[in-house]
Amino acid sequence: MKDLFVIKIGGNIIDDDGKLSAFLKAFASITEAKILVHGGGKIATDTGNKLGIESKYIKGRRITDDETIDLVTMVYGGLINKKIVAQLQAESCNAIGLTGTDANIILAKKRAFKEVDFGWVGDIETVDISLLNIFFEKSITPVFAPLTHDGKGNILNTNADTIASSLAVALSKEYKVKLIYCFDKKGVLQNMDDESSVVRFINKKKYAELLTEQKLFAGILPKIENAFAAIDAGVDAVIIGAAENLTENISEQNQGTLITN
Amino acid sequence: MKDLFVIKIGGNIIDDDGKLSAFLKAFASITEAKILVHGGGKIATDTGNKLGIESKYIKGRRITDDETIDLVTMVYGGLINKKIVAQLQAESCNAIGLTGTDANIILAKKRAFKEVDFGWVGDIETVDISLLNIFFEKSITPVFAPLTHDGKGNILNTNADTIASSLAVALSKEYKVKLIYCFDKKGVLQNMDDESSVVRFINKKKYAELLTEQKLFAGILPKIENAFAAIDAGVDAVIIGAAENLTENISEQNQGTLITN
Repeated sequence: MKDLFVIKIGGNIIDDDGKLSAFLKAFASITEAKILVHGGGKIATDTGNKLGIESKYIKGRRITDDETIDLVTMVYGGLINKKIVAQLQAESCNAIGLTGTDANIILAKKRAFKEVDFGWVGDIETVDISLLNIFFEKSITPVFAPLTHDGKGNILNTNADTIASSLAVALSKEYKVKLIYCFDKKGVLQNMDDESSVVRFINKKKYAELLTEQKLFAGILPKIENAFAAIDAGVDAVIIGAAENLTENISEQNQGTLITN
Repeated sequence: MKDLFVIKIGGNIIDDDGKLSAFLKAFASITEAKILVHGGGKIATDTGNKLGIESKYIKGRRITDDETIDLVTMVYGGLINKKIVAQLQAESCNAIGLTGTDANIILAKKRAFKEVDFGWVGDIETVDISLLNIFFEKSITPVFAPLTHDGKGNILNTNADTIASSLAVALSKEYKVKLIYCFDKKGVLQNMDDESSVVRFINKKKYAELLTEQKLFAGILPKIENAFAAIDAGVDAVIIGAAENLTENISEQNQGTLITN
């Protein structure tokens, strides 16, 4: 099977023009098939504030009401997505900007909540990779905004990490997929204050040991559990690392954390 | 050659949820290959006002400055485009939302102005139909926002009528293309106050007669000239009519104005 990289970047890169530009250069230089999934960033909050759209929270969780889904459709699906595509085109990477709505690639279901309606939030039901296969054949690089749809005319807000892992799992039927989460640390750290304490390699045995030795911080555990879930579902490996180390992290000179079965 | 429809709608439809919904139902029911090109609408101006982005004009022409290109990228490329795509998906039309930036389909050049810099406005240089051909083979319907790019990382604002005609001309090499402009009148009228005065058929001979007889209003002349330019460049026919008559206008029961060579 051919190699394929599914790479996710978050707000910390998107909000910093210099970091984003450096990241996109590194991303564009990857010669294997690849997908970029981007999250939002401060720009959505800032634009929302200017438009007088209040961020509403219930029990600490953001509500995606009518105004908010329009806001993220504009900012994620329009501004951030198309700016990234234009920059990749300038780096000779033939990118195409997409949401899950486009060509029905990611169909989701509006989440049913028991007590509170959190709004236009979607849980992924199906991923159709047929068009993605054609894009890879033509050396076209999909760039996904974190939006899906319900097939009934509604756009839904779906977590970018989840979109990345769902795409990776669906594509693992036909490709050897490496799923890369770029985040604000160099990798999984044993000591949160020491960037040199990256755990370079984790498999299930090692993870059990780290848990027993209580060497990991609670905040990172869900990320590792999600990585194992993706691997169990067919993904070859998950890499957690800093966006600025992308080139090294997909090579033998890995600076981040490589997670395998 | 197979039939293909390139259909353009403007702000008067986009700003009216009921009209837009009815139009999209009619559009979705077209069984031939088709492309939708949409313009902006009041929502861009309203969003701009809320964001404190002033509409700036020099000599009656809008300036697309940095703030404005971001605004239209959000509103045209994100909000309007993806909402249309989601609604078409609900009508079982497998739509994909695009700008000229995506997959480098429409490359443009920032317009060079002699006296005044009108900003991020693009004149189309090349249209690449290779990916569009694949979409049509797979029964995928492209929906274009009126944005292009310069290949140097910049998104450009390009008139939606021009995008529609450029796509139509480029596709006329491989399809029998009908280019349909939906606008706010039933067609080319002999009497602007009388919607029943539609000129049903115009060719170059008839146009010369209408001009001699001074039966046309000056405002419609550029539209007709542009229609003939598209026809001279290979488009089979141009139809100018009301969005609500789309179904009739692409059939033998044409209610609008059919323009041919």
